[in-house]
Amino acid sequence: MSDVEIGRAKRGRRVYAFDDIAVVPSRRTRDPEDVSVSWTIDAFQFDIPVLAAPMDSVVSPSVAIQIGKLGGLGVLNLEGLWTRYEEPELLLEEIRSLPEELATKRMQEIYSEPIKPELVTGRLSEIRSSGVTVAGALSPQRTQELYKTVVDAGVDLFVIRGTTVSAEHVSKSHEPLNLKKFIYELDVPVIVGGAAGYTPALHLMRTGAAGVLVGFGGGAASTTRANLGIHAPMATAVADVAGARRDYLDESGGRYVHVIADGGLGTSGDIVKAISVGADAVMLGSALARATEAPGRGMHWGAEAHHPNLPRGHRVEVGSIAPLEQILFGPSTVADGTVNLIGALKKSMATTGYLDLKEFQRVEVVLARYKG
Amino acid sequence: MSDVEIGRAKRGRRVYAFDDIAVVPSRRTRDPEDVSVSWTIDAFQFDIPVLAAPMDSVVSPSVAIQIGKLGGLGVLNLEGLWTRYEEPELLLEEIRSLPEELATKRMQEIYSEPIKPELVTGRLSEIRSSGVTVAGALSPQRTQELYKTVVDAGVDLFVIRGTTVSAEHVSKSHEPLNLKKFIYELDVPVIVGGAAGYTPALHLMRTGAAGVLVGFGGGAASTTRANLGIHAPMATAVADVAGARRDYLDESGGRYVHVIADGGLGTSGDIVKAISVGADAVMLGSALARATEAPGRGMHWGAEAHHPNLPRGHRVEVGSIAPLEQILFGPSTVADGTVNLIGALKKSMATTGYLDLKEFQRVEVVLARYKG
Amino acid sequence: MSDVEIGRAKRGRRVYAFDDIAVVPSRRTRDPEDVSVSWTIDAFQFDIPVLAAPMDSVVSPSVAIQIGKLGGLGVLNLEGLWTRYEEPELLLEEIRSLPEELATKRMQEIYSEPIKPELVTGRLSEIRSSGVTVAGALSPQRTQELYKTVVDAGVDLFVIRGTTVSAEHVSKSHEPLNLKKFIYELDVPVIVGGAAGYTPALHLMRTGAAGVLVGFGGGAASTTRANLGIHAPMATAVADVAGARRDYLDESGGRYVHVIADGGLGTSGDIVKAISVGADAVMLGSALARATEAPGRGMHWGAEAHHPNLPRGHRVEVGSIAPLEQILFGPSTVADGTVNLIGALKKSMATTGYLDLKEFQRVEVVLARYKG
Amino acid sequence: MSDVEIGRAKRGRRVYAFDDIAVVPSRRTRDPEDVSVSWTIDAFQFDIPVLAAPMDSVVSPSVAIQIGKLGGLGVLNLEGLWTRYEEPELLLEEIRSLPEELATKRMQEIYSEPIKPELVTGRLSEIRSSGVTVAGALSPQRTQELYKTVVDAGVDLFVIRGTTVSAEHVSKSHEPLNLKKFIYELDVPVIVGGAAGYTPALHLMRTGAAGVLVGFGGGAASTTRANLGIHAPMATAVADVAGARRDYLDESGGRYVHVIADGGLGTSGDIVKAISVGADAVMLGSALARATEAPGRGMHWGAEAHHPNLPRGHRVEVGSIAPLEQILFGPSTVADGTVNLIGALKKSMATTGYLDLKEFQRVEVVLARYKG
Repeated sequence: MSDVEIGRAKRGRRVYAFDDIAVVPSRRTRDPEDVSVSWTIDAFQFDIPVLAAPMDSVVSPSVAIQIGKLGGLGVLNLEGLWTRYEEPELLLEEIRSLPEELATKRMQEIYSEPIKPELVTGRLSEIRSSGVTVAGALSPQRTQELYKTVVDAGVDLFVIRGTTVSAEHVSKSHEPLNLKKFIYELDVPVIVGGAAGYTPALHLMRTGAAGVLVGFGGGAASTTRANLGIHAPMATAVADVAGARRDYLDESGGRYVHVIADGGLGTSGDIVKAISVGADAVMLGSALARATEAPGRGMHWGAEAHHPNLPRGHRVEVGSIAPLEQILFGPSTVADGTVNLIGALKKSMATTGYLDLKEFQRVEVVLARYKG
Repeated sequence: MSDVEIGRAKRGRRVYAFDDIAVVPSRRTRDPEDVSVSWTIDAFQFDIPVLAAPMDSVVSPSVAIQIGKLGGLGVLNLEGLWTRYEEPELLLEEIRSLPEELATKRMQEIYSEPIKPELVTGRLSEIRSSGVTVAGALSPQRTQELYKTVVDAGVDLFVIRGTTVSAEHVSKSHEPLNLKKFIYELDVPVIVGGAAGYTPALHLMRTGAAGVLVGFGGGAASTTRANLGIHAPMATAVADVAGARRDYLDESGGRYVHVIADGGLGTSGDIVKAISVGADAVMLGSALARATEAPGRGMHWGAEAHHPNLPRGHRVEVGSIAPLEQILFGPSTVADGTVNLIGALKKSMATTGYLDLKEFQRVEVVLARYKG
Repeated sequence: MSDVEIGRAKRGRRVYAFDDIAVVPSRRTRDPEDVSVSWTIDAFQFDIPVLAAPMDSVVSPSVAIQIGKLGGLGVLNLEGLWTRYEEPELLLEEIRSLPEELATKRMQEIYSEPIKPELVTGRLSEIRSSGVTVAGALSPQRTQELYKTVVDAGVDLFVIRGTTVSAEHVSKSHEPLNLKKFIYELDVPVIVGGAAGYTPALHLMRTGAAGVLVGFGGGAASTTRANLGIHAPMATAVADVAGARRDYLDESGGRYVHVIADGGLGTSGDIVKAISVGADAVMLGSALARATEAPGRGMHWGAEAHHPNLPRGHRVEVGSIAPLEQILFGPSTVADGTVNLIGALKKSMATTGYLDLKEFQRVEVVLARYKG
Repeated sequence: MSDVEIGRAKRGRRVYAFDDIAVVPSRRTRDPEDVSVSWTIDAFQFDIPVLAAPMDSVVSPSVAIQIGKLGGLGVLNLEGLWTRYEEPELLLEEIRSLPEELATKRMQEIYSEPIKPELVTGRLSEIRSSGVTVAGALSPQRTQELYKTVVDAGVDLFVIRGTTVSAEHVSKSHEPLNLKKFIYELDVPVIVGGAAGYTPALHLMRTGAAGVLVGFGGGAASTTRANLGIHAPMATAVADVAGARRDYLDESGGRYVHVIADGGLGTSGDIVKAISVGADAVMLGSALARATEAPGRGMHWGAEAHHPNLPRGHRVEVGSIAPLEQILFGPSTVADGTVNLIGALKKSMATTGYLDLKEFQRVEVVLARYKG
């Protein structure tokens, strides 16, 4: 651990973002056709290691179905417009067309509408009826209130996702969610995060979670660093949590908790890097918000963007560039890493000589100055 | 201390700014409601660790009163327009509306008007009559001339603030202020600075000061680096002075001198970072100049900006974005770290698991490349 | 090797680009007129250590002839427009004038036209008849299909060039090119690459290659980092491969394999740096695409830019600035390092006190922060 | 010496520019009025440690006189327009008004006019007649041809200035200037450079020079890095040469050779930093080209900008901002470090507690990330 003196009374560790690193080829190359990017968590197998982030600009029930059919997992935000409004399309349209300076304020109002349990049930049933794996996400704050509704509606994977989720939340005013007890009693496998360090992730693994989300969510659209001074660059965060996975595997006598990079994954190159430093899969926000089918229709925002008194993110324009299937599998007619994400991942693995995702976590990584 | 060879005949230490660092969560999270940000210096207790900087664009007598009522401390500049002019409003208006290229020159003229002791007395009385804690600031150069007026007018905290204030000023032409003797003889607790290193701060602590200001003042508006080649990035500066506080605590057998970060604190994230590396409180300039009540009405300048022959700062436009109370306590409808400063500080402390400011000085800090 | 911890489960090496380094003078200076920049590979001697890259925007048969007469080596792309079309000029003209947003898509179509073996023969014969050294390039994928045609047409140097070429390509679906066997059986000396690390380059050297291309090709026009997450900054890449050359020289009992920097060489300063870290020669793309004779007429693109489903490069505008001879030998009337490449190389060698390229590989190099 | 591995076959040292460093205050402060910035070289004493660079945009005979009267030393370029043309004013005017794209080419033509020895004599006599110290500069290439004319005209200090000047120039075609013999035989003290490293500077000191210029000249207007790949950031360069001064002082039994920073000195902050790392004085180009009296009238260029076949610099616009006296001594009405250079130097020395230039070379220096 490279520990640096910041000043007499403080030391700090140097940490790295995906932009700071790159992967490099070794002595062997392979055919992209020979590469597998399949991924299994609990009883669920996926052809591609891609989870669509539970953000209203990314996943609607129909997008969740489509991503499932394409081999990934679409996670529906159960605290978003689909569970607050019977007809969310009009509000999505309004958010998309708000002028910049009013966007935050109006989103705060729109998201103050209460969540309707019957809509939670309805949206999840819609996905389930299509036959794909069903996943829905709640924040830790809402989990106790809504999890029964969610489980009764039938989810295959339960996602608890917040800016920072710890195994040990302490509160003076209310009994917080006891994650360990909650997960133990639940029949459904749980994916939980964001976590961004070795210790918090290790504690989350000890709760019995099947997967840990690494990062703070929101990615491109987030201003957490300016607002809270908190920042955990993703390359270090993922490599730290991968270290926790390794140590927990030993400590637990063989339980492999999946590490899912969540944030800072704008291009296929970022996905490659996430896996190169230890991720088993990636949760994509802005990268999929660019799909023509995405509910944001080229706009993208996270829950931080409409926090009622401390918004920590922006609605950002990412553009609509291609259908979802083409964004994932190509062909691409652009050269900026936004289309053919899976093709690029396979090409990168083949070029550096690896056949599957687990092996590729061992690829050589370098630190190279970022330009522009 | 990481000491680097610059060239054969010179070595230098690597130092860090707030932008170079970030705080990271640990294994525990808390509720923001459970967090206390109160702060006590000498006999004075404050709900929030915020001092408004003695700059004409930030603190008028009425702003000082308002900040006091909101739980902080407004420090009036006793060498500014309020003590030079009976009716400073017209001159503030003129400064605000000067075209860019004439601003420095005209400010030099406006500030050449002599200080009127009776106005010092009057302005301080106005604040005192409101019942809030009274604080006024002089530069070291003016302290001998004016301190009796100030003390007689009744201040609770006496601030001596300059670009660089040392415990040992040497002059061939005049008898300089003997800080140690001055502070010893004064009944009122003294806050003194700027200082930006371990040794100068330790010497200031030995003068008997109750608090030390860390930094050079002026922050965003300052061009000291281009003009004087002098630069002390704030993360290292605060951590160094916190080191001096610790060593002086031992040396003095228990006197705790407060460390107040003063400069480079434009966003709530910066305030978080200042405390994370050891500050007990922060003195805010530009962050409060953005209040609709601030006398600068969206313009901001420090004393360096109107130095008669060597100006080392600019009048900068920071904008008027919200009332003072909302800037401090929210709610916010923007996501850039300029509104709800205290809410953000509490949220950051809660997210990283800390309950009070003193504990939060132990939070884990990382060095992360700054982007844009 | 400076190995840094990225996070708990991953370490990485810090690597450097040409922009990160500079050469510095030593105690002796010389006359540029006394400096030799000649270079010999196999039986072929060249006055200048310059190979023109096999890219359609850089080398046509007539440019290959012209470069040969100027003392360098023009390498014809045998999978480009000249071997796909009888009359490539119209298509070059079309590519040059395509609007930005259509360029990639239309290039994909144009390059889907099959390669005609008779055109391979014809283009190479045209070059051969001029009397200069003849060199043509194939990708590894096409080598088995076309090499007999190429050899029969008569090449002096055979170039196998791809984004990443390894000595050991593994495929499940087809029998890959066995480079070692191929080179052993071929009568013609082979230059092969890109390779960008010690180990892959050492393995390429063991195949019997006469030269190794260092880099990924494409340089300025490439977006490999954003697409594949792969990046090998050139200063480190060349110095690593030069290390492989040294070790292979020992291992083989004296076989000197030439190291040719290929990529990131936009200015004369970059050429200087490539040799300073160990290159024997340079392969230039954009630097020569700026010649008025270049087929791109100011536009520049590589094979990555028209990949059928994963384009990883752009058509970029480099401008037409001077005739080829003037770009190489001056005089220059611009000061940006784009004209009089050889004059600048000689001047730099003279200023730092070196007389030939091999000696100049020992020049002192520093790491200096890049500005803009 | 911090030596870094660039790649397997190459190591390099990390070096620093003025922008990378800053000076910091220590425990004592002083009055600027008490500070002396006087400087003595050989028999000549100067009130200020400023040499005006021998560049046509900076020093005319009348400017040389004016600078002398202000306490500094103006060095006339003896290979410039004043010694090539009887009436240089028209040509200066033409250069100033050339459109950007024609500037280099037309300057090449204008400077192809031969130098007239009688003009050398005349210009120097004009300066001498004013009573100030007389200094003229030749390039090493012209020194043998013209030095007698120069010495006969009467110079007090003889400056030999080139991009890189070594004590040991080797040529196959002509007998190069033997600096050691030349300086030994000359009655006049010689200042020679640029040199930018410990070893080349030590060798120059051994020739008997009274002062060494550190840097490559040209500064802001230079493109040496892009053209030649050569770059010697000034903070390291000056500190290295100061190391050579110290070692040569010992080796020679007490001969103190003056170190003059020459290049990269655009602001008063840069001048401060040059001295902080060991310079005895500074040679200013762009900083004085901004004077209303400067012959460039707001435009600035060096000899590299009109090199006949390899120009390595640009004519740049620096603006005319104040009379020479005000640029040096203030008062300033701008805050960007371009006016009141000496006032700023004194203020910086006083703030950090130093009384004279020699002491100030011991000030504490830090490495701080440069912003914008």
